[in-house]
Amino acid sequence: MVRAIMHGCNGHMGQVITGLIKADEGIELVAGIDKYTGIANDYPVFESLEKCDVEADVIIDFSNAAAADALLTYCEEKKMPVVLCTTGLSEEQLAKIPEAAKKTAVLKSANMSLGINLLMKLLKEATKVLAPAGYDMEIVEKHHNQKLDAPSGTAIALADSMNEAMDEAYHYVYDRSQERKKRDTKEIGISAVRGGTIVGEHEVLFAGTDEVIEFKHTAYSKTIFGKGAVEAAKFLAGKPAGLYDMSDVIQF
Amino acid sequence: MVRAIMHGCNGHMGQVITGLIKADEGIELVAGIDKYTGIANDYPVFESLEKCDVEADVIIDFSNAAAADALLTYCEEKKMPVVLCTTGLSEEQLAKIPEAAKKTAVLKSANMSLGINLLMKLLKEATKVLAPAGYDMEIVEKHHNQKLDAPSGTAIALADSMNEAMDEAYHYVYDRSQERKKRDTKEIGISAVRGGTIVGEHEVLFAGTDEVIEFKHTAYSKTIFGKGAVEAAKFLAGKPAGLYDMSDVIQF
Amino acid sequence: MVRAIMHGCNGHMGQVITGLIKADEGIELVAGIDKYTGIANDYPVFESLEKCDVEADVIIDFSNAAAADALLTYCEEKKMPVVLCTTGLSEEQLAKIPEAAKKTAVLKSANMSLGINLLMKLLKEATKVLAPAGYDMEIVEKHHNQKLDAPSGTAIALADSMNEAMDEAYHYVYDRSQERKKRDTKEIGISAVRGGTIVGEHEVLFAGTDEVIEFKHTAYSKTIFGKGAVEAAKFLAGKPAGLYDMSDVIQF
Amino acid sequence: MVRAIMHGCNGHMGQVITGLIKADEGIELVAGIDKYTGIANDYPVFESLEKCDVEADVIIDFSNAAAADALLTYCEEKKMPVVLCTTGLSEEQLAKIPEAAKKTAVLKSANMSLGINLLMKLLKEATKVLAPAGYDMEIVEKHHNQKLDAPSGTAIALADSMNEAMDEAYHYVYDRSQERKKRDTKEIGISAVRGGTIVGEHEVLFAGTDEVIEFKHTAYSKTIFGKGAVEAAKFLAGKPAGLYDMSDVIQF
Repeated sequence: MVRAIMHGCNGHMGQVITGLIKADEGIELVAGIDKYTGIANDYPVFESLEKCDVEADVIIDFSNAAAADALLTYCEEKKMPVVLCTTGLSEEQLAKIPEAAKKTAVLKSANMSLGINLLMKLLKEATKVLAPAGYDMEIVEKHHNQKLDAPSGTAIALADSMNEAMDEAYHYVYDRSQERKKRDTKEIGISAVRGGTIVGEHEVLFAGTDEVIEFKHTAYSKTIFGKGAVEAAKFLAGKPAGLYDMSDVIQF
Repeated sequence: MVRAIMHGCNGHMGQVITGLIKADEGIELVAGIDKYTGIANDYPVFESLEKCDVEADVIIDFSNAAAADALLTYCEEKKMPVVLCTTGLSEEQLAKIPEAAKKTAVLKSANMSLGINLLMKLLKEATKVLAPAGYDMEIVEKHHNQKLDAPSGTAIALADSMNEAMDEAYHYVYDRSQERKKRDTKEIGISAVRGGTIVGEHEVLFAGTDEVIEFKHTAYSKTIFGKGAVEAAKFLAGKPAGLYDMSDVIQF
Repeated sequence: MVRAIMHGCNGHMGQVITGLIKADEGIELVAGIDKYTGIANDYPVFESLEKCDVEADVIIDFSNAAAADALLTYCEEKKMPVVLCTTGLSEEQLAKIPEAAKKTAVLKSANMSLGINLLMKLLKEATKVLAPAGYDMEIVEKHHNQKLDAPSGTAIALADSMNEAMDEAYHYVYDRSQERKKRDTKEIGISAVRGGTIVGEHEVLFAGTDEVIEFKHTAYSKTIFGKGAVEAAKFLAGKPAGLYDMSDVIQF
Repeated sequence: MVRAIMHGCNGHMGQVITGLIKADEGIELVAGIDKYTGIANDYPVFESLEKCDVEADVIIDFSNAAAADALLTYCEEKKMPVVLCTTGLSEEQLAKIPEAAKKTAVLKSANMSLGINLLMKLLKEATKVLAPAGYDMEIVEKHHNQKLDAPSGTAIALADSMNEAMDEAYHYVYDRSQERKKRDTKEIGISAVRGGTIVGEHEVLFAGTDEVIEFKHTAYSKTIFGKGAVEAAKFLAGKPAGLYDMSDVIQF
């Protein structure tokens, strides 16, 4: 059983992860760290890592950028593996990560979702087989009506992962209404649908002769990032020093 | 049992319709008309309508523009209902249709698919309920990689039918990648996916707060236009003179 | 602008509805009723309806069965329209509803979702057109892995609504693995998928010759019942006495 | 450029493959073999392999069981690689295949579709990651209303391939309507939808906490088996003697 410390345990994601771990037989929370202590948890909560005297195998971090320096120093010194999920780190803080990774195992990923990261791996393999056989690749993503950017960063990341699997890079097409012409064989079409409160849907199609193969990921809430962090923590416990990301967690 | 004459019985669609009617208990083919007589059918085939002496209730036409003048004259004189599916008629020929419709029942429609025409009716009703309640409307259509235009005429027709149901017309958006901004509430997004040999898929979404309602039409071949013609013929037999379209066939 | 009182304003659904109404230009909350007053709302909150002196056009009720008697008595006396969403009413309480409806407008529905109720209406219309034309009807529903019953009550309700549109009732089939035979034309297949935390998905297919028409409803949370209640309140304000349900709200 | 001989070139699948190869830059047909010679092809057609004097790298076979003995003898003697797609072989004929494979490369597969075989490989990898993380697995397959068996052989094969990736075999569940209970964590639900003329759709879901990952394969015609045979031929040309199947063609 992996023993984890939840860094930022009383924030929204900290509580989500607390719930996920309660239902998981392979990992348990032995302590939490949070300045705000107004929530009753099943584990002891400390105001800072320094004050925490509980033994653990890994730290899961979903706190805030202000706490990142102390966290990295602590992990480096104690050789404590850490899953780093806090966003908005400064350039200076980001520079400290590879340093810490020389002494302990640090996992950081652009997207913490297990499903999206798995999909990226599988899409590379599918692309290697289907692109040379003439299948056309298309992506449709759907998000809520408040989202500012289109297509989503995840849609671009999925297309990039397909491109990495090919000898020749395909170009991305976002609009077909302005020209009257056949689809180019070397393009990946990316469509962005916006509406309601859709959390996030990504669909990748490989369309061949009388055949379509689809890969689809649907997120119902940001809980999926917590789920990814939990799997990452189980993976990271006991690993040697180094910089890891979610693709390392996805092992076939 | 409706007795039908298949005008253009030995062409591709004529044969498709022959097969569909064989499996339909509400209609039978009593004769076919075709200049080419090299195919063995279960019904007598005549080189022209003039030579056909079989009694019938309706004519289904899937021939060619050259035969349209004689067909319209015949139907007008004999007061014979006709489902007119031949495309590429000249301005002059099109002008004859309302004339003929003064004497007999004539059905002509931009899209002969029963499913698409039904969808247009249902979308109007859904729009009346959901648009005022703040649901966002989006369309995604998918077609083969040889299609020149985007979005498809059918996608535009579906959007138009939704717009007809609203007091204020919504504008259509084909590309969201060029601007960084939230979705406008008065827009209908239309995305065009192209790949492989996809015959035609149209998906209409109404996305609200934590809820999505989808309407989807998938065509697997052009047989669906034949199916629509058969239903149209069953509907048209016995109807008074006048100009009809597929929306008349869709009766709740 | 419809003025509404939220009965049970500080419960989970009361707060959900408070949020929905804040973003709605056609309705406002002028007061809330709740015994628990620990939440700060934008409107005055009273411990009981008797203590509330704010003028309103309609009451939305998402409280508990214990409060239902006082609520019904109040609405009957004041001739105040009420959207009744509390579940678990006793036989006695249920019997009071038609009584109250003689004096004021009362709306109660088995399923408060606007989308599901709209779908039921549209499915009836689709069935009238497509069933006689030989299309096969199938339902696939998906829910979380903790659900005890299968298929879902909503799936059965959707099938029932299709059956109501036909002269002859079709029978429901839940399993095809035990017999080696062709599909009966007079059946509606209903499949139940269970997994993860899926809130609720219902997909209805009409499959014909080379054509499939699909209707799909996806719920992302129970917020959709709140949304339905808000639309019901806007509809009910100013209506004459009588018993209403969600199908009355869906007007084409 | 791989040079192929089409064995059974004037049958339905032979003609489908002729069309597919015409559009493929990596392979060409240099000869065809068929007793029926009434079709004009771009390549010379011979009545039997013995009469064919054209040099080639591989034979694609879509003929009939009666021709299989002569074909296998020929390939064994000439050390000619062969993609064997003829079905309905006798026990005796099947026994000859491993014998021939000692002298030349023979490829034979239960399902010739490139997409389905790719999916099987990817599902194994997805299962290794997602099953231990607690995701539930479900399959929904859709076929035409004339199909006798349910679920489809392909659905079972997909479930089997997932089971192969797990330490402990999951059991298959075809009906959930007879019992009132929660989903077992060690089950794979398999639902069979039947309607219209649907050629074949297979959807595999991995449902976790607030996340669903879907893999879907849609066949629009039997052409996909021809496409798989063409890719298999390109793969097999030049390979050493041995028995191969489609999973060998899918190389990441």
